[in-house]
Amino acid sequence: MKARVYVSFKSTILDPQGQTIRSALAGLGYKSIAAVRQGKFFEIAIDSGTTREQAQKDMDAIARDVLTNPVIEEYRIEFLD
Amino acid sequence: MKARVYVSFKSTILDPQGQTIRSALAGLGYKSIAAVRQGKFFEIAIDSGTTREQAQKDMDAIARDVLTNPVIEEYRIEFLD
Repeated sequence: MKARVYVSFKSTILDPQGQTIRSALAGLGYKSIAAVRQGKFFEIAIDSGTTREQAQKDMDAIARDVLTNPVIEEYRIEFLD
Repeated sequence: MKARVYVSFKSTILDPQGQTIRSALAGLGYKSIAAVRQGKFFEIAIDSGTTREQAQKDMDAIARDVLTNPVIEEYRIEFLD
């Protein structure tokens, strides 16, 4: 089983890195780009012996406690197969 | 229109950051995690006046030339709405 955890800044948090990419793209001639926000993701392979419920519980705890800074970031979990 | 560009290491490239997260998780008691690989993504808002074909062309060029290091990274583009 595989899961992906996507971590991004909350929408109320400024993303200077994304803004920099946006102005760089404008400078390169891509004028139709309105905004860029950057995030990170984690592709996590889970042992096949694990039940879906256990995996879901683990992923939730991992995303919340380890991969995300809850003050400024939010996460989204997606299971593959 | 919105697009997401996901950038990750090619599968042949070692990901030490992911390996570190994996061993940290094992140390925290999450024994069922087989592997972790980290990547980044860019959420790109495109002006509504842009056609889908133009957006697709632009995103492809931006992902290839700006957001990805083609020697060690690969990308995947996803359009929302």
